[in-house]
Amino acid sequence: MNNKYIGVFDSGIGGLTVVKAILDILPNENIVYFGDTLHMPYGEKSPEDLRKLVLNNCKFLNSFDLKAIVIACGTAGACCMQDVIDHNDLPVFGVIDPASKLAAKTSKNKKIGVIATKAAINSNAYEKAIHKFDSSVNVISKATPLLASLVEEGRFTNDNIETKTVLKEYLQIMIDEHVDTLILGCTHYPLLSSMIKEILPDVNIISSSKCAADALKSALEANNLMSDTFIDQKYFVSSNPERFTELANIFMDKFNSNVSLKKLD
Amino acid sequence: MNNKYIGVFDSGIGGLTVVKAILDILPNENIVYFGDTLHMPYGEKSPEDLRKLVLNNCKFLNSFDLKAIVIACGTAGACCMQDVIDHNDLPVFGVIDPASKLAAKTSKNKKIGVIATKAAINSNAYEKAIHKFDSSVNVISKATPLLASLVEEGRFTNDNIETKTVLKEYLQIMIDEHVDTLILGCTHYPLLSSMIKEILPDVNIISSSKCAADALKSALEANNLMSDTFIDQKYFVSSNPERFTELANIFMDKFNSNVSLKKLD
Repeated sequence: MNNKYIGVFDSGIGGLTVVKAILDILPNENIVYFGDTLHMPYGEKSPEDLRKLVLNNCKFLNSFDLKAIVIACGTAGACCMQDVIDHNDLPVFGVIDPASKLAAKTSKNKKIGVIATKAAINSNAYEKAIHKFDSSVNVISKATPLLASLVEEGRFTNDNIETKTVLKEYLQIMIDEHVDTLILGCTHYPLLSSMIKEILPDVNIISSSKCAADALKSALEANNLMSDTFIDQKYFVSSNPERFTELANIFMDKFNSNVSLKKLD
Repeated sequence: MNNKYIGVFDSGIGGLTVVKAILDILPNENIVYFGDTLHMPYGEKSPEDLRKLVLNNCKFLNSFDLKAIVIACGTAGACCMQDVIDHNDLPVFGVIDPASKLAAKTSKNKKIGVIATKAAINSNAYEKAIHKFDSSVNVISKATPLLASLVEEGRFTNDNIETKTVLKEYLQIMIDEHVDTLILGCTHYPLLSSMIKEILPDVNIISSSKCAADALKSALEANNLMSDTFIDQKYFVSSNPERFTELANIFMDKFNSNVSLKKLD
C-alpha cells in the first residue's frame, strides 16, 4: 500500500477527465492536479515550448510527495513523454499507449481513426504507438484544433450547434474511410463523446482518459502501490482558478475541491 | 520628422490588422511587432495575468528605440491601457477609444453593438469609452470568445462554415436589438469582417484596428513625429514563428518579413 499522491497535469481542464476516470476505479487515490491554464491551449505550441512547459509542470508536482506522474494531456504525452520519463525518477503514465493498445486489439477492420490537437497529430505519436501493437493497422489521423478550445469554452453540452458543426466537418473523413474505432486522443474530448457518438453511431469510441486510468490501476495493483485511504485532492492552475472551478462543476459529478492559483517560474 | 520605431504588440496574429491599417496610411513608418503567441489567447486570462504579460511585452519593445507604443489587442487595451501608460514614458495608443469615438459619432439610432473577448467585455472598457463620447448610447456588448481562436486557426476565409455558424449565433443579439453600428472590439475580427457584413448587411461595421491607425496618424502628424524613411519592420513572437508567418502570408498583402522567436523572462 502507498498513500502518496498521484501527480496529474494537463494544459487546463481536460485532464479532469483522467482524474474522473481514475477516481471511478481507484476511489482511494490522493491526487494533486496542475492545470497550466496560463499557457492553454497546448495544441498549437512548438515541441520546444511544450517540453519546457511540461518539465516545469512536473517540477511543481514533484514538490509534493508523489508515487507517480500522469500526463493527462494528449499533446504533452505525444510530444514529451520521453522527456518526462528522463527527468523524473517516478513511474510516468501517459494517455497514448493504453488507448493505442486497446484500439489495435479491438478494431476488426484494422481502420483506426485518431483525433487530437495539431501538435499531437504532427508528432505521429498515436500512429507509432498503434503500429507497435499492430503494424497492419491503417491509421487515419485528423488534427482537430478547435475542440479543446470549445471544451474550455464550456461548449460541450449536446445542444451546442457550433460544436456539432465543427465536429461533423472534422469527423467526415472517419465516415469516408470507414474506420470502426476512433481514439479520442486529447483528454478534453471525452466531454464531447456523446456528440461524437451521434455522428459516428457505429464506431467504437475509445477514450484515452479512461484507458490511461485503467493502465494506471493495473500498474499500481501489480506493484502493490494502491492507496487504502483517501486523504485529499489538491488542484492548482496557473491562471483563473474561478473559471476552472466553474467548468469543473459542470462535468465532474461532485467537484467540491478548492482550486488554487499557482504561478510557475 | 522622427524615424524611430513604433512598437506594436498583440497576443498573436490579430495585431497585424493594426499594422496593416498603419502601413496603409503611414507607409514610411518603421514597426517592431511582438506577438505573445506563447500566451495566446489573452481573452480568457485574468486581469492580473494580463497585466503582467502586457508589461513584459512593453519591456521587450522598449529594448528598441521607440517613439510610440500601440496596444494592438482589444483585450490588453481594455484591461491594461492605464498600466501601460503608467509604466512607459512614450505616447501609448490603444484600440478602444478611437473606435468608440467613431461609433458614438456615427450611430444614428444610438444602439451600438460591441463584440470582443470575454476579458474585454467583462472590463466594460468599450461601454465606458462610448459613454464618454455619448452617454445616451445603448451599448449591446457580446463576448465572442471563440472568434480569436478561429482566426488564429486560419478559419477566416468566407467559405468557412464553422466560423459562419458561430458568428451567426454570436451576432443574433445585434439583429434582435437593432444595432446600427457594430464595433469589432478585437484586432483579430477585421479578418472576419466580410462574413460579419453578410450576416449584418445594414449595420455599420467599425474596425478598432483601422480606427487605431487613424488616431495614430493624427497624433504623429500633430506632433511632427511621422517618419520620412521606411527602414524596416521587425517581427517577434514568443512561440511558433513558422505558424505566425504562415497565417501572416494569408492575409497581409505582402508579408515578406522574417519572424523571430523571442522568449521573454
